[in-house]
Amino acid sequence: MKLHLPALDPEAAGRSRVRDAQLTKPPGSLGLLESLPPLFAGLQGNDIPTARPAALFLFGADHPATKHGISPYPSAVTQAMMGNFVRGGAAAAVLAEHHRIPLTVVDVGVDGSPDFHSTRSGLTFVQSPHRRRPAGDIRHEDAQTPDDFGCSVEYARSLVLGAEGPLHLTLLGEMGIGNTTVAAAVGASLLGLDDPGQLVGRGTGADDAMLEAKRAVVRDACRRVSGEKDPLELLRRLGGRELASLAGAMLGALERGSAVLVDGFIVTTVALAVVRAFPAARSRLLFAHSGDEHGHRALLAALDARPLLALGLRLGEGSGALLAFALVEQALALHGRMATFAEAAVPDRER
Amino acid sequence: MKLHLPALDPEAAGRSRVRDAQLTKPPGSLGLLESLPPLFAGLQGNDIPTARPAALFLFGADHPATKHGISPYPSAVTQAMMGNFVRGGAAAAVLAEHHRIPLTVVDVGVDGSPDFHSTRSGLTFVQSPHRRRPAGDIRHEDAQTPDDFGCSVEYARSLVLGAEGPLHLTLLGEMGIGNTTVAAAVGASLLGLDDPGQLVGRGTGADDAMLEAKRAVVRDACRRVSGEKDPLELLRRLGGRELASLAGAMLGALERGSAVLVDGFIVTTVALAVVRAFPAARSRLLFAHSGDEHGHRALLAALDARPLLALGLRLGEGSGALLAFALVEQALALHGRMATFAEAAVPDRER
Repeated sequence: MKLHLPALDPEAAGRSRVRDAQLTKPPGSLGLLESLPPLFAGLQGNDIPTARPAALFLFGADHPATKHGISPYPSAVTQAMMGNFVRGGAAAAVLAEHHRIPLTVVDVGVDGSPDFHSTRSGLTFVQSPHRRRPAGDIRHEDAQTPDDFGCSVEYARSLVLGAEGPLHLTLLGEMGIGNTTVAAAVGASLLGLDDPGQLVGRGTGADDAMLEAKRAVVRDACRRVSGEKDPLELLRRLGGRELASLAGAMLGALERGSAVLVDGFIVTTVALAVVRAFPAARSRLLFAHSGDEHGHRALLAALDARPLLALGLRLGEGSGALLAFALVEQALALHGRMATFAEAAVPDRER
Repeated sequence: MKLHLPALDPEAAGRSRVRDAQLTKPPGSLGLLESLPPLFAGLQGNDIPTARPAALFLFGADHPATKHGISPYPSAVTQAMMGNFVRGGAAAAVLAEHHRIPLTVVDVGVDGSPDFHSTRSGLTFVQSPHRRRPAGDIRHEDAQTPDDFGCSVEYARSLVLGAEGPLHLTLLGEMGIGNTTVAAAVGASLLGLDDPGQLVGRGTGADDAMLEAKRAVVRDACRRVSGEKDPLELLRRLGGRELASLAGAMLGALERGSAVLVDGFIVTTVALAVVRAFPAARSRLLFAHSGDEHGHRALLAALDARPLLALGLRLGEGSGALLAFALVEQALALHGRMATFAEAAVPDRER
């Protein structure tokens, strides 16, 4: 697999830094937000860049490993939540509508899920033609065959590449009961942890017994693939359908020249796999949220990421990316619309 | 001085908690955001509350203590920035316009400042009739006489009480070269620090010599008022005109039944003085941003505050409150518009 990234425009990024230094504020006083304009300027070849058009792609799938008692919610929740996204009642759908960000909900392997019909403006539902292919229980077998994995990646990649109009910021979300467990297996293998169970957290609310069950699945799965170093192979063997799709969507977004706003434990795991496979991707990723769980922080540290938010979120769905979108948009509004010292006739600092 | 707070509606707050537990998400998965709906519900007597109408009041003043070399910027910046707010070029004005939040810029003691005329929709400029009263250099004398202080507080309080229409969320901002120094003196005295210099930080970018000058002013000022325990007297004697006005605006907002979004080192100092004087105010304050400086963190800890953001901001103007406003609004949108488990026919957790 190859990744052809459009070139950045270092001159536009440089001009945006020059502009930032002229704005009527002390240098650095907008903190972390000041890192955003040069990234978007370089991607867009425009020293006054924008966060829009933005789009959220949300991938849902089920996991055979749920049979090991790893979630307080039954697998049927995945399908029910797909309907809840399509009808606009789930958190990600509410926030996408709040921001007028188009939401594409993609069924890439939800058990028995119907073909929901969206009648909502800005909300599209699609089903992958590959969604009925059997997925493996990662405790004992690979999650996807090489052919399955390729189809999952390419379908999502094509979906993002084919989305209409320009795309400056891509938000990614996921839904899948059991997917914090499969993500922990992928993450622990990528990090090469001696005890893969370290990366396991309570997810959406596992009790002590479930936490132990999650750790057992993760340890067995990681042992099964020990020796495997290829990050995309780890994603294929341990990751499940929506994780493969997230990787494909991330690649498609980057190939289009979009920045990607990474959020949550699962998307962060996929980001680490993508960056290990394609290091040039790293500089085009933004990080929305640092969770309270040790595992999420370990992945963020491996990515040298400084997320915009730390609110104790543990919902997934891209909800943290949507919350952080408001900060990205405000950072770019400040950059584009603040007056310079010269324009405002404000005396600069005494030197 | 007395504070008459309108009663909270505990039943509306309780109903909002019941609703939160029924929304299609794991309990607690929206983290810190879940604390917001019950607060607003109690204030508004409505279990589906809103963050709007919101308003930002921004107070500017100068400080004689700037003669001690405590800021890299000349005092003339205060006046120039007042013009920059009115013309929409300053950070707070850009973000207020972005959110369509009305901004009232108030000159309460800016040296030689003209009567700016605002032609921008949603942007009002007013000058306090008391603004020409002399202010004291806190190193050697009280910042305000009792009569001055009373006028500053009451003018701002009346301004907020008199603002048209309902007001559900009040944002506060400030501008005043030298005001991180006077705020540090107020904060250190309120906290009773053995070394008041501890609370001093680099503000908008003080170098080592300026940092030492700030510490010297703060130590001398705090020594001058040692023994004074009344929080509002400390605010009067050490605080300057815009800090007194912020206290008045906070009281006016609370008396109207509005929540107050507290932001930045200076507004946080004022919040601590107000809460020490009127402990019942605390539960109606939200905190926008935790700065990197030790002093700001010490004040937040004394208020038992958990701010929504930590972005390394050090601009003031209410910029952090405006950035955080987007999170408050999203939290209330989620609370009001997400589907319940019953509405969405999503199976709840297995118990």
